[in-house]
Amino acid sequence: MKKILYSISVVASAMLVFGLQGCKPKNAGDATGADAASKVYVAPGKYDELYNFVSGGFSGQVSVYGIPSGRLLRVIPVFSVDPEKGWGYSEETKPMLNTSSGQIPWGDQHHLDLSQTNGEIDGRWLFANENNTPRIARIDLKTFRTSEIIEIPNSAGNHSSPFITENTEYVVAGTRFSVPMDYENGDVPIDSYKKNFKGTLSFVSVAPKDGEMKLAFQLLLPGMDFDLSHSGKGPSSGWFFFSCYNSEQAHTLLEVNASKRDKDYVLAVNWKKAEEYFKAGKGKKVKVNYAHNKYNEATHTASSTMITETTVIDVKDFPDLVYMIPCPKSPHGCDVDPTGQYIVGSGKLAALIPVFSFAKIQDAIKNKTFDGTYGGIPVIKYEAALYGEVKKPGLGPLHTEFDGKGNAYTTFFISSEIVKWSLKDLKVLDRHPTYYSPGHLCIPGGDTRKPYGKYLIAYNKITKDRFLPTGPELAQSAQLFDISGDKMKLLLDYPTIGEPHYAQAVPAELIAKNSQKIYKLEDNKNPYAALGEKQTKVERKGNEVHVNMTAMRSHLSPDNIEGIKLGDVVYFHVTNLEQDWDVPHGFAIKGNKNAELLIMPGETTTLKWVPEKVGIFPMYCTDFCSALHQEMQGYIRVSAKGSTVPLSFSLGKNSEAAESIIAKK
Amino acid sequence: MKKILYSISVVASAMLVFGLQGCKPKNAGDATGADAASKVYVAPGKYDELYNFVSGGFSGQVSVYGIPSGRLLRVIPVFSVDPEKGWGYSEETKPMLNTSSGQIPWGDQHHLDLSQTNGEIDGRWLFANENNTPRIARIDLKTFRTSEIIEIPNSAGNHSSPFITENTEYVVAGTRFSVPMDYENGDVPIDSYKKNFKGTLSFVSVAPKDGEMKLAFQLLLPGMDFDLSHSGKGPSSGWFFFSCYNSEQAHTLLEVNASKRDKDYVLAVNWKKAEEYFKAGKGKKVKVNYAHNKYNEATHTASSTMITETTVIDVKDFPDLVYMIPCPKSPHGCDVDPTGQYIVGSGKLAALIPVFSFAKIQDAIKNKTFDGTYGGIPVIKYEAALYGEVKKPGLGPLHTEFDGKGNAYTTFFISSEIVKWSLKDLKVLDRHPTYYSPGHLCIPGGDTRKPYGKYLIAYNKITKDRFLPTGPELAQSAQLFDISGDKMKLLLDYPTIGEPHYAQAVPAELIAKNSQKIYKLEDNKNPYAALGEKQTKVERKGNEVHVNMTAMRSHLSPDNIEGIKLGDVVYFHVTNLEQDWDVPHGFAIKGNKNAELLIMPGETTTLKWVPEKVGIFPMYCTDFCSALHQEMQGYIRVSAKGSTVPLSFSLGKNSEAAESIIAKK
Repeated sequence: MKKILYSISVVASAMLVFGLQGCKPKNAGDATGADAASKVYVAPGKYDELYNFVSGGFSGQVSVYGIPSGRLLRVIPVFSVDPEKGWGYSEETKPMLNTSSGQIPWGDQHHLDLSQTNGEIDGRWLFANENNTPRIARIDLKTFRTSEIIEIPNSAGNHSSPFITENTEYVVAGTRFSVPMDYENGDVPIDSYKKNFKGTLSFVSVAPKDGEMKLAFQLLLPGMDFDLSHSGKGPSSGWFFFSCYNSEQAHTLLEVNASKRDKDYVLAVNWKKAEEYFKAGKGKKVKVNYAHNKYNEATHTASSTMITETTVIDVKDFPDLVYMIPCPKSPHGCDVDPTGQYIVGSGKLAALIPVFSFAKIQDAIKNKTFDGTYGGIPVIKYEAALYGEVKKPGLGPLHTEFDGKGNAYTTFFISSEIVKWSLKDLKVLDRHPTYYSPGHLCIPGGDTRKPYGKYLIAYNKITKDRFLPTGPELAQSAQLFDISGDKMKLLLDYPTIGEPHYAQAVPAELIAKNSQKIYKLEDNKNPYAALGEKQTKVERKGNEVHVNMTAMRSHLSPDNIEGIKLGDVVYFHVTNLEQDWDVPHGFAIKGNKNAELLIMPGETTTLKWVPEKVGIFPMYCTDFCSALHQEMQGYIRVSAKGSTVPLSFSLGKNSEAAESIIAKK
Repeated sequence: MKKILYSISVVASAMLVFGLQGCKPKNAGDATGADAASKVYVAPGKYDELYNFVSGGFSGQVSVYGIPSGRLLRVIPVFSVDPEKGWGYSEETKPMLNTSSGQIPWGDQHHLDLSQTNGEIDGRWLFANENNTPRIARIDLKTFRTSEIIEIPNSAGNHSSPFITENTEYVVAGTRFSVPMDYENGDVPIDSYKKNFKGTLSFVSVAPKDGEMKLAFQLLLPGMDFDLSHSGKGPSSGWFFFSCYNSEQAHTLLEVNASKRDKDYVLAVNWKKAEEYFKAGKGKKVKVNYAHNKYNEATHTASSTMITETTVIDVKDFPDLVYMIPCPKSPHGCDVDPTGQYIVGSGKLAALIPVFSFAKIQDAIKNKTFDGTYGGIPVIKYEAALYGEVKKPGLGPLHTEFDGKGNAYTTFFISSEIVKWSLKDLKVLDRHPTYYSPGHLCIPGGDTRKPYGKYLIAYNKITKDRFLPTGPELAQSAQLFDISGDKMKLLLDYPTIGEPHYAQAVPAELIAKNSQKIYKLEDNKNPYAALGEKQTKVERKGNEVHVNMTAMRSHLSPDNIEGIKLGDVVYFHVTNLEQDWDVPHGFAIKGNKNAELLIMPGETTTLKWVPEKVGIFPMYCTDFCSALHQEMQGYIRVSAKGSTVPLSFSLGKNSEAAESIIAKK
């Protein structure tokens, strides 16, 4: 116990010195101001060199930055509702946030992985995990929109996710918190953790053509905390590596109780073998309940399906599936180098970085160079798996990425620095302070077979005193480094949205060339779409009123509606008739307990409104669209229940004024 | 009618040529790349020169940028829910979004005004309007948090707001959409607009000491659309000026029907006189219903009060209160120069900019140089109020700000440019293209008595082809200009959050010096606060369970809770015990149909949870706070209704482990 408290107090002291007291270590050979300025400046009208997709952490969303400018190009709504974009509020997007617990307005979005072909980024999809209520999302990079979200059953805290295999065969989800399985009675004492709490690693297949995800199988493991992972590549293709901590199986005060052992583990998982077993019908079918939500681009609608079965393969029944490799101490990052030969484990409390050799791991498995078992899983001897150790690299190693030139870069949370070291001889080559306490880092393509090098971005947890103060709450920050030379050069600090964890970056051309600019009206299959003003209408179906309306510079059609009554539920299906890039329209109604709509050219989106008061309610375009945008307004009259005011509307196909406008255009 | 259609088709053609086809007019004498780069580059560790508070438009929030870097320092949640910050989800903040229609998750935040003393920015508060469900918010610049929100009754589309008087006596709110008044029966035909629809200008007083807002009185006006406003200053102190359009009183197809008259109006309002009448008990007390929401910093809680009465002063009964000045054509911006002598009206469809003289307006009033009345209000003759016209300035003038050196800068939406002109002789001095279609612009202090000049920021509605493409939806953009010389020099393009309308900017020191870094624990008066781990507890009150818990690096206390039953409503009152800047903790529970909490040092915040399933639910810190953040987790056990599992919890005052940790610290 003394040792544990000591290690914690080392951490605490180091944090006081480095991270939290605003210490400013000296920079080492940074670019001069003018040089750095010219390297990050993207002149008006010029484009950034790279897209940087950055996880939002507790924002639940994904943000897209331009590199080297650090400019925020877009926030993509994924797991949290976004009133601005109507995400989770329009009828079409509500199903996307459905879970086995119903709609949840918030998610904790930690990690990202871009789809790969042959271990290289192919620019098709971006996968994002959700930690709190385990889910994986797929974002379509043609539209920068979330296309699909799948929930993960038998899991809690989907942290080691959404890492992918080198041809995007699978996207993986490992539970951070072990829990009783969904198919068991979960009402058990918390102190029965060792007996009743289990971990799972889930393999979600990705359809090669359209990217559709499907939960294939889950591996059942002893209870502990599964943290991060990466797939093998090249020689290690077919394997996946996961870090885990709390091999002490503590369930309370983990700060102390999960920091007792000198080593936890990196798990080596033979997923090709697991796939074989699964395809051969091995494993147990169990009853579960999880949501699978898909967005349909043709109809502009989403659907949510509840799935009720999954296959669980208990790894202790299949001794050639999973092996454990001891790894000091509470490992966090678990990173595979571009050649696929080396696996780097980063122990948060370790004073060294172990590098494991895939070849040695295979030899150890073949020769059974084991040191007993853990929960029924063979434990490979540390030395038998070890390629070598990076000695005294820094304090609190967290994550490692690679430049493709034989170098690794590791973030150190406690000593607030990035350390560059050689994969060949494990020697430290350079170190550079960060401000402060970096978590993740990103080298474009840095976790693929072909990193693009040149830049490194550090994502720092502590920002104090780096930007103008904004009260008790500060943005977290990114720092951009030039890594094209021998020494890292700090170029730029910039604040970030939410809390970035993993990020991905690629040269712009790979994404930009496929970017979609509008939705074609002729492809719009939404059943309520009005594909021209003559198709606009207002129809009553019992107490439901459906308004098939259009938005076009600079009027809504219809723009006056009467005959709505208290007790009605009104659906405004708004089609944006524009067919030009960057001409969205917005739509909102006074006092509606809902968000707005932003409707892209050619799209149909639906806003629900349940009027609660008699009176006149303005509606208007919320997105400044033209010189006469302020004129793009209308009124809805709501009468009492039982009123005899007939349903009627102006403009649309019945309106001469509308006809003349249409003729003019 | 022909003329109207012509003017619209001019607009449409111009938009095709300038705004929407990505035309790139040549720049005029811009800074060279290296020069511009050095002017906007803020080196790591250095601070921006200015804070720029930017309205979020359809995002509902306010964003804070650093100038000249264009970096987004913070998004302040105001009118829309923000799952990231728990805004609208925590028990403490839910009341802040209350309205007479209940909680509304979204707002349309258009304009901002910083509090002023003697016509200069004093750095205390930032006021923000909400257009859709009329509201005004006050943000405290010590904490960068929304402190107060007041709803405006008898109003719809609170657009000409929240402009303030030069000693922040009042913040103003003018209705954009005229509607039947709340105190009348609103169930009237829409085509009875001229008879039944009215406009109001509301004057909300601001308490000098603590900024508390109170709806003082409302001026009742004929139905039309009230657009923008600014208060007088210096000689015109005591007056307010509002632009209005749709003096045609059209209620459908405003694109055509509200563009018929050659001139609409600028309203000159003698608010000092109105205040006198109000204090003398004039006007009519009417029954209304509106919400007034306040955040209490001592208890960290908010309250919402419904107010049921207001005073309406019908201006046609008080002929010396309001005067109308004809203004071509559909005026939008209504801007008063730093000396308070000149009022600039910007007609969206006008080919000139009229500048009105306050002195001439006063003479015209004295001499009754009127041209009849409009809705009972005297109309001053155009020429009698006119100082002069800026001839052929551009197409589609929208907004004007001032540099304090005798120059005005106007944005032109249709011709996509900013034009600099002289207040003295109304000559155009310079013009610079923008990319594309600017709406608002901001010169730091540009609407006060003492502009800071140096920079101008244009907020553009159209962005296409200026940044890397991000699918059909693009960010809107800002462009930073150097205006320190004779010619405007474009320095930087950067994307923005939401849709910026008005913005405010001030030298950083004015705000930074008062910025609050933590909430002091000893000042925390939240009734559920646990101000130390020994005060943590779990208490049952019927089916309500209250958890008074603490968060501190790196554990939650308690971290295991049993005895929760289906049917319970659980309140987690989490106090962040840290007393160091930039050490927030986060808090979330698996499957909770709620957001997360972000809890600042010294603050108590409450998350509600209604468990729906039996089982074990992890909870954890969502904001990476320390090297052992991943260990900052716990479990909650939920049992069936009627279960005999007793309420119990680990850690907190009952835990030896906790005691040892506490002793160590």
